[in-house]
Amino acid sequence: MPKPVRHEAARAMLNWLGCALGGCREEPVERLWAALREFAGPPQATLLGRGPRTDALTAATINAISANVFDFDDTHLATVIHPTAVVASALLALAEYRCISGSEFLHALALGIESACRIGNAVGIAHYEEGGYITSTCGIFGAAAASGKALGLDAQSMNWALGIAATSASGLRMMLGSMAKCYNVGNAARSGLSAALLAARGFTSSERALEAPRGFLNVLAERADSTAVTRGLGEQWEILDLAYKPYPCGVVVHPVIDACLDMRAQQAIDAAAVARVEVSVNPLAIKLCGNPAPRDSLESKLSIAHSVAVALLDGAASVAQYLDTRAVDATVVALRTKVVLAADASIGKEQARVRMILANGTMREMFVEHARGSIQRPLSDAELEAKFRGLAAAELTPAQTEQLIERCWSLASLPDAGAIARASVAAH
Amino acid sequence: MPKPVRHEAARAMLNWLGCALGGCREEPVERLWAALREFAGPPQATLLGRGPRTDALTAATINAISANVFDFDDTHLATVIHPTAVVASALLALAEYRCISGSEFLHALALGIESACRIGNAVGIAHYEEGGYITSTCGIFGAAAASGKALGLDAQSMNWALGIAATSASGLRMMLGSMAKCYNVGNAARSGLSAALLAARGFTSSERALEAPRGFLNVLAERADSTAVTRGLGEQWEILDLAYKPYPCGVVVHPVIDACLDMRAQQAIDAAAVARVEVSVNPLAIKLCGNPAPRDSLESKLSIAHSVAVALLDGAASVAQYLDTRAVDATVVALRTKVVLAADASIGKEQARVRMILANGTMREMFVEHARGSIQRPLSDAELEAKFRGLAAAELTPAQTEQLIERCWSLASLPDAGAIARASVAAH
Repeated sequence: MPKPVRHEAARAMLNWLGCALGGCREEPVERLWAALREFAGPPQATLLGRGPRTDALTAATINAISANVFDFDDTHLATVIHPTAVVASALLALAEYRCISGSEFLHALALGIESACRIGNAVGIAHYEEGGYITSTCGIFGAAAASGKALGLDAQSMNWALGIAATSASGLRMMLGSMAKCYNVGNAARSGLSAALLAARGFTSSERALEAPRGFLNVLAERADSTAVTRGLGEQWEILDLAYKPYPCGVVVHPVIDACLDMRAQQAIDAAAVARVEVSVNPLAIKLCGNPAPRDSLESKLSIAHSVAVALLDGAASVAQYLDTRAVDATVVALRTKVVLAADASIGKEQARVRMILANGTMREMFVEHARGSIQRPLSDAELEAKFRGLAAAELTPAQTEQLIERCWSLASLPDAGAIARASVAAH
Repeated sequence: MPKPVRHEAARAMLNWLGCALGGCREEPVERLWAALREFAGPPQATLLGRGPRTDALTAATINAISANVFDFDDTHLATVIHPTAVVASALLALAEYRCISGSEFLHALALGIESACRIGNAVGIAHYEEGGYITSTCGIFGAAAASGKALGLDAQSMNWALGIAATSASGLRMMLGSMAKCYNVGNAARSGLSAALLAARGFTSSERALEAPRGFLNVLAERADSTAVTRGLGEQWEILDLAYKPYPCGVVVHPVIDACLDMRAQQAIDAAAVARVEVSVNPLAIKLCGNPAPRDSLESKLSIAHSVAVALLDGAASVAQYLDTRAVDATVVALRTKVVLAADASIGKEQARVRMILANGTMREMFVEHARGSIQRPLSDAELEAKFRGLAAAELTPAQTEQLIERCWSLASLPDAGAIARASVAAH
């Protein structure tokens, strides 16, 4: 693997692990674990952040849901697949149980992400538009390929693993808005890992499961392009097209937050001194996120006014800024009322202009050309670390957090990749 | 439930249990259990026939595969769904763990079979033709509905259970011919049971998962008829249209076996005295099953000549007659060479004419108008019992077999339906 690919795999890993730490106590995770724990097997793999160990298949399921529940995980923009939630959750659970080196882990992770995204390219965006939840229907191949690689499957067995994955692929896009959306992601992680484990035992499948006339690609998509699966394999890397969200809220709000955070940091703006904030954005941003008075976490994630207020008050826009309690906090509510929105069709969807009028009459202004996390301005390693710190804060001490960040960056030299999972839980 | 429905549920149960006993040591079952056992949870439910107890979700998976591996389980003819392998496997595993009465069990079983077949009617045969493996894609709803009923879900939770099932539905028809075919069935049993367990914990899904524009029915089928799901519900019963195969071999061979078995029994024909057997069948039967010299179990199931030989020699055509060893047995091979096939387009696919010329020159002939197990000539209770005895023979003593048959017939009055699972294992 080229060095940039290896580094991107580590970035995907850091981002995924942070998301899992941040999401590990959300309602869907609690309910799923409550339902599954009585059926679970021996303690082989860690439930990230929250702690108990359980069998690797159950851990893969739960960790995938933790990582995806905030919709804060990575996105392969061409297909809108969130690959790492599926792939890394399966792979780390297996790695912890079977003891795989960090170097093998990174290789398998990159291979899995490639597999998921390339099969996603083959079915095309039409599959998503027609109602398939592409993160699970295609992500499962990534979990199978990564797990199969880690298990050392030969070509015949890997073929079977992908075939078993093909016949286990499921997920409807309409589940968005319910808990079953992230269950799709957990299901894909579990089923992909299962597929590899079965193939390792000689469990057979059709050997042309992807490309046959009645195979996965043709059954799921109207006009699938099977050549996209292998075209440029090992030369062009889909993993290099992953995007990471800097903030757990509507993407059109992101440039506004960028401006507020940068002005606060660079110009030392004190939230208490702000008399009015004028925000000019693309009309779509106001249509989607114009709510001036959100009442809970979910509504606050779709509110520009709320995002401006918390960014100025806290100098951050992470999970803690979008809790139910924060949505009704008196200081936040007071500052929100000072935000005025203006639609401006000349401003792009990834852009924003923010003007602050301070109590003493001075005015500050900033225009954001490209939001952080966009193709033109990918998150830097330091920004990914900052995101990770915000997500890990509820579970780990700052020292543990820094150690875990360091372990992700040095994954390639870890003798046992599973150490990362064990280090994700607060010492008791 | 009307009495005939209740009785048909007991018949479906007896047939399913026999199939699971007969298939429980087949290669796909061995490999799946070898792969899954290290991840399995506490001993809650019995692996039918073979014995160890494991967690209910794993037991549901394995038992479904045991029941389906021979393709000897029931068929809902309009949709070609094999419903009971999915539904009963999920339900009995749950029943054994949660202690459900036989009466509740029968009710839930019938409801599950109705759900699977009715949703199958709604997607239509086109879904199967387009490449979906309808037994798993629609069977999962049966497992979810039956399990949900047994768990006492209210309407809201049952809606979620069906929604979670919809987004977990998977399976490609092209897996036929590989082990992954019956894995589909196991997957559907497990995922349907999981869906009900999740819903019981308040795990939510889209609430119009079946009928919405981008719901299950429209995503999976070109021209789905959603009204078929509930039309005549509680008045017309799909379970009354289940067909049971009398013999574990190609369906076009069945009328030939009927003739051989009946002639042997009624006319006391001694296989050793047979000089020649002339078999006239529909041309399709010869195309599919004309192989005069099968080399193994799989080939012998698609051989009229083999079926004639074992039927005359053993007076039976059950699992024991289609083992690898039987395909190469010298006496069987010798008798097979005396079978002469003739194609006759005037003979229907469910018909056959068999003429035997004995060594002393006498000739016997029989024409079968409708094969056993066809719509016109459904298997009697006694024939189902005979099939069960053939399937159970390798695992249970005759006394245990008779007791288990009796328990299936008296299921409605059993205080604990799980007793059936425990009685399916030889006492050690």
